[in-house]
Amino acid sequence: MENYEELLNCIVKEIQKKSTKTSVPVGISNRHIHLSHGALTKLFGQGYELTELKPLSQTGQFACKECLTLCGPKGVIEKVRVLGPVRKDTQVEILMSDSFKLGIKGDVRLSGDIADTPGLTLVGPKGSYELDKGVIVAERHIHMAPADAVAFQVKDGEKVGLKVPGTRGGILDNVSIRVDDSFTLECHLDTEEANAMGITPGLNLEIIK
Amino acid sequence: MENYEELLNCIVKEIQKKSTKTSVPVGISNRHIHLSHGALTKLFGQGYELTELKPLSQTGQFACKECLTLCGPKGVIEKVRVLGPVRKDTQVEILMSDSFKLGIKGDVRLSGDIADTPGLTLVGPKGSYELDKGVIVAERHIHMAPADAVAFQVKDGEKVGLKVPGTRGGILDNVSIRVDDSFTLECHLDTEEANAMGITPGLNLEIIK
Repeated sequence: MENYEELLNCIVKEIQKKSTKTSVPVGISNRHIHLSHGALTKLFGQGYELTELKPLSQTGQFACKECLTLCGPKGVIEKVRVLGPVRKDTQVEILMSDSFKLGIKGDVRLSGDIADTPGLTLVGPKGSYELDKGVIVAERHIHMAPADAVAFQVKDGEKVGLKVPGTRGGILDNVSIRVDDSFTLECHLDTEEANAMGITPGLNLEIIK
Repeated sequence: MENYEELLNCIVKEIQKKSTKTSVPVGISNRHIHLSHGALTKLFGQGYELTELKPLSQTGQFACKECLTLCGPKGVIEKVRVLGPVRKDTQVEILMSDSFKLGIKGDVRLSGDIADTPGLTLVGPKGSYELDKGVIVAERHIHMAPADAVAFQVKDGEKVGLKVPGTRGGILDNVSIRVDDSFTLECHLDTEEANAMGITPGLNLEIIK
């Protein structure tokens, strides 16, 4: 009987070990814009609603048909995609290289953390919208549901590393874990991070703690 | 006397330890063009000579006043800087993101290793030049003189890692060591690699073996 229990324990441990997740799929973001209702109205007109082009991996999020122009003190970037739905605050996520082109500071921040970030002017078909803050370079992060956090043995707000294979491989430090019931498991990097490390969409990267 | 010799040995060892180099200054390259004499003539006219704008860190190399347009099957990139002096082969060093814009393959290669790489069309003030190969995404590398190689205890062709500090920090694997009498100690990264890892010009990065 004792041997039987030992065998059971051994099987349970093996199953647990195999169910501990270690790798996450990658999603790569280019520069994009989230609009508040006020900004949407000013840029596209009263009563305007965003037009969904295609759904994104995070539930309820979508790429829109609409694009806008970003205007900074030193330069302009045209055809920047709007993502929906409308949010409480307008937020513009740029690449670090865009910050040099626009002539504004490139602040690496997690989405939503926009205190003391730079602004710029958005230009749309019905007018312009002067943003006093909300321009960030997105800090790399991993979205996951609470069950994923258990499987990975990580907590919301924790920072982990990601091992990148290949010629341009290496390790990305300080990748923030973001846990929410609504989140689908995915690591978000921007196009500069992906290009620099030779990462293509859908690649799975190993978490290092 | 024995104690005196011991003390001397100890001092020599300490000096040797401190003279073992571990970090290298970083130089960041944007997209650029090296021209052959034939390409220079076709693009700028018979007898044309490149105009030096400013010297680069590697002895004899310089940024030129001249810029050209890169044309690929899917897109165009204007105002791309020519570097001098003229070389045996024309070589165009682009960013990985440029490869998507131009519509050509982004081949990560060391400078000079251009067999089976894609081509494109260069457009200048006096005509265009169709390049059948020579477009690369530069493989990250460290230039050093033979004395540096001794100090770092590395060999030409060896690959090392680079430890990057900061919020966007981590480790860059597979950084090639290139040793030549003419080389000045410097690690060459492209702007996407630098932006992705939060690296600014002149930063010193630690070599990891």
